[in-house]
Formats: sequence, structure tokens, C-alpha cells
Amino acid sequence: MAEEKGITPRATDYSQWYLDVIDGGDLLDDSPVRGCKVLKPHGYAIWEVIQRVLDQRFKDTGHVNAYFPLFIPMSFLSKEAQHVEGFAKECAVVTHHRLRSFDRNGEKGVEPDPESALEEPLIVRPTSETIIWHMYGRWIDSWRDLPLLINQWANVVRWEMKTRPFLRTAEFLWQEGHTAHATSDEAKAEAYRMLDVYADFAKDTLAIPAIKGRKSVRERFAGAEDTLTIEAMMQDGKALQAGTSHFLGQNFAKAFDVTYQDKEGKREHVWATSWGVSTRLIGAVIMTHSDDQGLVLPPAVAPIQVVIVPVYKDAERAVVMEAVDKITAALKGRVRVKVDDRDHLRNGAKYFEWERKGVPLRLEVGPKDVAKGQAFAAPRVKIGDEKKFGIAFDGIADKVEEVLARIQATLYATAVANREARTYDVDSAEAFKQALDEKPGFYRIAWGGDDSDEDRVKEETKATLRCYPLDAPSVEGKTCPITGKPAHSMAIFARAY
Amino acid sequence: MAEEKGITPRATDYSQWYLDVIDGGDLLDDSPVRGCKVLKPHGYAIWEVIQRVLDQRFKDTGHVNAYFPLFIPMSFLSKEAQHVEGFAKECAVVTHHRLRSFDRNGEKGVEPDPESALEEPLIVRPTSETIIWHMYGRWIDSWRDLPLLINQWANVVRWEMKTRPFLRTAEFLWQEGHTAHATSDEAKAEAYRMLDVYADFAKDTLAIPAIKGRKSVRERFAGAEDTLTIEAMMQDGKALQAGTSHFLGQNFAKAFDVTYQDKEGKREHVWATSWGVSTRLIGAVIMTHSDDQGLVLPPAVAPIQVVIVPVYKDAERAVVMEAVDKITAALKGRVRVKVDDRDHLRNGAKYFEWERKGVPLRLEVGPKDVAKGQAFAAPRVKIGDEKKFGIAFDGIADKVEEVLARIQATLYATAVANREARTYDVDSAEAFKQALDEKPGFYRIAWGGDDSDEDRVKEETKATLRCYPLDAPSVEGKTCPITGKPAHSMAIFARAY
Repeated sequence: MAEEKGITPRATDYSQWYLDVIDGGDLLDDSPVRGCKVLKPHGYAIWEVIQRVLDQRFKDTGHVNAYFPLFIPMSFLSKEAQHVEGFAKECAVVTHHRLRSFDRNGEKGVEPDPESALEEPLIVRPTSETIIWHMYGRWIDSWRDLPLLINQWANVVRWEMKTRPFLRTAEFLWQEGHTAHATSDEAKAEAYRMLDVYADFAKDTLAIPAIKGRKSVRERFAGAEDTLTIEAMMQDGKALQAGTSHFLGQNFAKAFDVTYQDKEGKREHVWATSWGVSTRLIGAVIMTHSDDQGLVLPPAVAPIQVVIVPVYKDAERAVVMEAVDKITAALKGRVRVKVDDRDHLRNGAKYFEWERKGVPLRLEVGPKDVAKGQAFAAPRVKIGDEKKFGIAFDGIADKVEEVLARIQATLYATAVANREARTYDVDSAEAFKQALDEKPGFYRIAWGGDDSDEDRVKEETKATLRCYPLDAPSVEGKTCPITGKPAHSMAIFARAY
Repeated sequence: MAEEKGITPRATDYSQWYLDVIDGGDLLDDSPVRGCKVLKPHGYAIWEVIQRVLDQRFKDTGHVNAYFPLFIPMSFLSKEAQHVEGFAKECAVVTHHRLRSFDRNGEKGVEPDPESALEEPLIVRPTSETIIWHMYGRWIDSWRDLPLLINQWANVVRWEMKTRPFLRTAEFLWQEGHTAHATSDEAKAEAYRMLDVYADFAKDTLAIPAIKGRKSVRERFAGAEDTLTIEAMMQDGKALQAGTSHFLGQNFAKAFDVTYQDKEGKREHVWATSWGVSTRLIGAVIMTHSDDQGLVLPPAVAPIQVVIVPVYKDAERAVVMEAVDKITAALKGRVRVKVDDRDHLRNGAKYFEWERKGVPLRLEVGPKDVAKGQAFAAPRVKIGDEKKFGIAFDGIADKVEEVLARIQATLYATAVANREARTYDVDSAEAFKQALDEKPGFYRIAWGGDDSDEDRVKEETKATLRCYPLDAPSVEGKTCPITGKPAHSMAIFARAY
């Protein structure tokens, strides 16, 4: 079980702080498999909430779920030229389907059986465009079959050499939407609709103010015509790509020859999108909201929203537990509540544990509170003048919901304020580079560069073009401060995770 | 999309009937990967219901979910001798982590990059005991850490040479519970508790009357001390193992050296269980309830419980749709309802499609029905004297729920009756073999055989010892009709999927 070691303050070492928060929250553990982590129960429970809320949003927008094979024939990857370029360097390859025992001079063990070598190796999916578009070729024939709006919840593997918990691991959990449309316009509209779904979800559930934007050509998904992104800013001013939605044009339809007959009887290739978010979102939540005391979870994504700690000496047990049972009954079905009635732990140890696990609201109930007809509320983050305050038993569920809503709003407002405080306009190339070191954040540039200018900025500053924000003001008539060329788009540059 | 071809009657060819029902229900499709299928939206939606209901049952019994790596280091499998024996012959082996391009005299392609060969190959999990018990070794130290009650929803791969949709595929979806306990008794109790959870779920949700029993030594899970099973009978009299719960003793704790310190300060190895059900359950549902018209789904597991078909000519549209909207609003939140308002399909085609998709109840609403203040109800299976009957708009949600409950009860009763009718007592060895051919079913035998007797029966009759039922009468003093030895346990033999 998680050891009770201290959490390194953010100011001392931000990277170590992040690892300590994860440890203290009991979210994740190392595994014996290179680059793979174990999602411990409290970490996985956050993913379960994300799944439940997002899945409903997908269904509300007309999508259904399905499940496609984990394995992709090696030859499929090559069918879309950019796609194989993007994924060939980091994929797990299955080459055999059996082990055999060996005994060589007393050294015993098992090894892949050479006689079980596959004719064609299989790739463990890094993403499923290829196999899904192969299937769509079987399913789509007429305009009546369109649009096809399918999502998959799955594990994927990308053999990353440099990993970071939640943000970059060899295996991770995600969802991938894959849709097929009759027209380019309809597919584009779908890509933008799903970007909105992600941005709204980030705001409403994760309390993360993400910027909606388009990726530059350099940063596009391998095989996409256009990649849309939600970019979030972490507390240290670095950017995190939190979700992407791709307009794939007809690239995959052509690679897998998927056509449909329109109402006039003509055959045309189908238009596509794909979009995904992953367990990386948990990393985004941690880095947006947590503090030097450990994990902070917005109520909407917290697996446990309220923990009730009964506080009593032996003789007072009955009266306290009766009140606790009543409160629990009132809250059940409205908020996710847990009673911590463990006998072998002191109250202080309980408070400490739930604080580190990021539970948004703690209710303490002791005999004096019961006599006064109230519980003591201790929100995980300060939402008013007092750190703790009484909540009357009478109508407690309404009041608890109200407190949770205030916590959610406070976290969102704080994240917005942090982002605003760390967003800068760039006037000159020299100032930009120096500023990046001194004040990490989002740098708005009236950008006039091309691909190679973008490469140069990346090499010189380690900052990347995060996105062209969708709601940016016009740059007409402006000159790019970095390249001296006429600006073509407002862009955000930042160092990123 | 699924073609509208006929369904082979069960009496003509049961195996083909099964495939036709799956096709007609649009549940599954072949994939380009050997042994792997695609779960199409309607098939996956059944799995989603199963997941939701079972997950709640697991949580109600104190379990939490977590997620462990897809890959298992090859050496881990070998740590438990029986376990590697059971799984080495059918596992997908990852040996490389990168592809490289090649161009040999104009032949272009990609291939595993020899320089990316892994030092130790990885196995795609066929089940997760080994990696989970490795992790439990990090998490368990004291009696305070026990019991540890964790479940995982995941995909697994077993390289099956002979596959059958839902029942046996190379990759499949399942859940696997893995629990750790301080005592043998507690672990055994857990194994039996989860068997009850499975049996209750099979009855209440799937309308499948499963027999709870213990597996023989021969049929045990590789690495278990005791395997419990729920055995279901399909309509053709064959058995299907629908779920298993294993008491693993200290086998995995010893293989991975997982010990705990008890309250007296002594260290002991931990006791374990594991238990799982898979997408195979969907095959069990199909084979238990469906008929020559196609798929039949019990309401509790049907993704769509009620389909409403508005029946009108153009001028009547407004009045009909107003009624349909009211019914839908009344049903929403209480039953899973869908309105089929597609314009390009005739009513007959709609009825046909939903029948094949197994929707338990169809409501037809036409202008005459609206005038009479009622909808016409057509249950997928006959539940009374009339095939169709009116249901008044007034209080329609209550009545629909009542009809669905009657459908569920009817399906269960029919399945029980089918099993009873095909369960036989065996008096002599000769009669047994002949009977198996003529009357496939469950054969109750006061069994006195040992492992080799069991092997012989299997070889001679293709029937296996399905289980020793938990609630069997005593066989004291009886003689085994097959072996002539004194009977030690009542056993059920059957041919199985």
C-alpha cells in the first residue's frame, strides 16, 4: 500500500511533485513490463467516471459502440503512406502463436516455438483506422449506410521510449471514434462537433479550460487532412494536448477502397473522421488542480465526492453512527459518498489519506455536531472565507450539492485565471526566447512561418506550435514577429508535455 | 449491412442456424485477423448491458476495478507449472517493437526490425493471474491489506485453432476477478460467493437456468485447487460452461512469493481466487432463447427492450407521431426504448428487422389505435393466448414493464422446461452411449471413476464430466453404472461447446 512519504512542493521540483501526487493518491504503480503502468483502483475509478460521462455524450450525439480486433495485419498499416510513417517506429509486433519448453544442459524455460511463426506478423493496434476502414468496406455500400458513427473503448500500444505516468505510456486506455460520411462538409462538421464535445466535457467535468484549435501541418495526425485539438495549460505553464479530432478526408477510404452509391447512382469514396481521448486526461486533471498537499479532484470527476468521517469515543459511537447513517441515506443516489468507519486508524490519518486522494469534500460528524444538528464540512480547496463550516442535517443533500458545485466552479475559475496569467503576446523573436525560459506559458504569435520556420522555432526554443485557436482575432496586415513574414494565422506556441 | 437471407431452421442444421441468427441479428462480423471477430454495434450493446449489470453486482459485493498491463513477461508464465502447461500452446508472442521499410528489387513493404528484437518476449495476456500476483506482491504486506478484492474488464487472447462466434475466438472480452485473502476458508467462501453472483445474474438477467457445480480434476483451470462452474444447457441439449470461479489455494502466492504478516506477527502465504465470464455469455443467450425466426433476447439483457413503430399514411403522420412522442416520454428512463421512424422502409421490413434483432416487445401505433387510445403490443415470444394485444396509453409504462417481466419469466420457464426434459439418469454404460446420440442432454451419473475413467468416457462418447452439482443428492452406497466402482459423487456428463 502507498507509503506515507511527503509530497515535494511544486516550487522545488515540479516533475517530482507530479510523481508524488500520483503516489500519494494511490493512482498508479510501476509494472514489470517496460513502459506499462498499472492503474490502481483509485486511478481506474477516475477513468470509470470519465468513461461514463463521455459515453453518454457520445450516445447523445448519435454514436454507438463496437469492438474491433486488437491485432492489425502488418500489411494494413502500409496502405496509408503517412499512417505507417507515423506508427511503424513504435509498435509491438506479434510474430509467434505458441511457446515451447526447452531444457539445455539443465537450463530450463520456455521460448517462442519457431514452428508457430506467423506468415504475416500482427501489430498490436496503436490506433484502429486501418482495421476499421477495412471493415467499413464490408459495411458501406449505399448512401443509406451513411453516416456510420461508431466509437470504440479500447487499449492501444505505442512503444514509447520515454514515458511519464498517464501522459505517455506504452499501453494506454482510450476511446477512438471512427465515422464515415457521404460528403466532405458533413465529415468536417462531425470533426468540429466532437471537438465541442471534448471541450465541453473538459470544462464541465474536468474543470479544465481547454483552447479549441487547429493543428499545424507538422503536428497533424498521421493520415489526417486536418487535426483539431483541445490544448490545456498545466500549472507550470506547459501545454498538454488533451484530445484530438481529425478530418481524414478520403485518405483511408481510398487506401481501403471504401465507396458508396449516392442517390443518383454514382459511386464516390467515403469521407472520414476519427477522434480520441485517453487516460492522459487523468494526468491533465492532476496537473491542473492538485496542490502541495496532493491530489485535488473536481467533484464531477471524483469517484468519491464526499467522505464522511465519524468522530467519537467508544461511548458516543451509537449516537454518532445513527447520524452518519441518516446523512449517508440522504446523500445516496445524489452524490458519490463513502463512510470511513475504519477502527484501526486515527482521525488525523483518515483526513490525511482522503486529502491525498483528492476527495473534494470531507464531512466530520462528532457527538457535539450531532447535538447541534450539523456536520462539519471541510472542502479539499478553499471556497470561501472559512476552511471549515457547519452544514445542518436538515436538507443536507441540497447543501452538499451546492458546496460541490462551488468547489467545481472554484477549480475552473482558478484554472482560467492561471491560464490568463500565463498567456502572453509576442512582439519580438528575442523577447520570445528569453520569456519562454523565465515565464513558461502560452505565447500568442501572429504567425507567418512555414513548416521549416516551425521546425526552427522548435529546435531553438523547444516550443511547438500548439494550435491555431478557432476564435482568434484576424491577423490581416500584421507582420510575424518571429519570421518577419506577413502573418497568416494567430498561433499559440508553448513547451508541451 | 446485414443481408436479408433466410434463417436455417434448427431442425435442419443447428450449427448453421446459430450462424444465421448471429448474421440476422447483425451482432458480429468476420475480421481479417485469424480467429478474431468484430463485435458490431448491436452485439456490443448486449455486452454493455452485461457489463453494467455485472459491474454493479461486483461493486455491491465489495469489489473494485483496476487495470493491469496487456503484456506478460514470458518468464512469468513459467512460474506456476500447471499454468504455463495450460496456456503456452495458444498464446500470441510479441518479439519486436518496431517495423522497418524494405525495398528489395522493387518489392516494397515493412517488416519487423531485427534491431528491435526484445530481450525477453512478451505474451499477450491469456489471463492475468501471473502479472496480477506479481503486483500483489508489492501491495500486500500485512493482514490490514487483506482481503484485496479486485476485478478487471479486459481483452484477452488465446490462440484457438478452431473457433466459433462468441463461444471460442482468439481474442475475446471478459472480466477477471482476482482476490487475495488471509485464510483458506475466506478464499473458498469468496469463490462460492462469486459463483452465486454468476448464477443469479444468469437467471435474473440472461434468463438462463445454470447448474452450479464443481469441476473434476481433469477440467480444472490451470493452476487452480478447485474450479467452480455454472453449466448451462443449450436448446440442442449440449452443455456450455458459462462462467467459472476458482479457488487457487496458495499456488500463485507461492509462485510470486506473496506473504502477509498476521496479527500475531507471523508471515504466511496469501490465499487466492479468480473468476471470470466473457462475451461467450452472448452465445449462451442466443442458443438458449432464439428461435427459427432469429434472435430472441430476454428483456433484462436487451439493449433495446421496446421498439415503437409508427404506422401511418402521410396525412395521419402528425396525430400518430404526437401519440408516439407521448408514449416514448412515458417509457424513457424506465425501459430502453427506440422509435423506428425511418421513412424509406415499409412496416413489414421494420417488423422483420427488429424481430431478427431480438427486440422483446414491439409497439405499433396507427391512427385507429390512437383513436382508441391504445397501442398494439407484439411480444417477440408468445406470453399468452394472443400474439398481439392492445395496451391503453393510460399508464402505459407500468403495463409495458409488466409485459417485459412476463416475457422474461416465460423465457426462463421455457429454458428450465427444456433442461428438465433433456436431463436423464444413467443406469447402464451401454444405454448411456446410445442415449447420447439419440437424446443429447445432461446425463446424471452416480460417478465412481477416476481421472483415467473420465478420459475413457470422453474418448468413447465425446461427453465430458461437466460438473459435480452442488445440490446433488448423496450417492452413498450406490455403484457407478459406468465403471462398476463405488460411486463417490453425483456427476453430470454431456457433450459440450
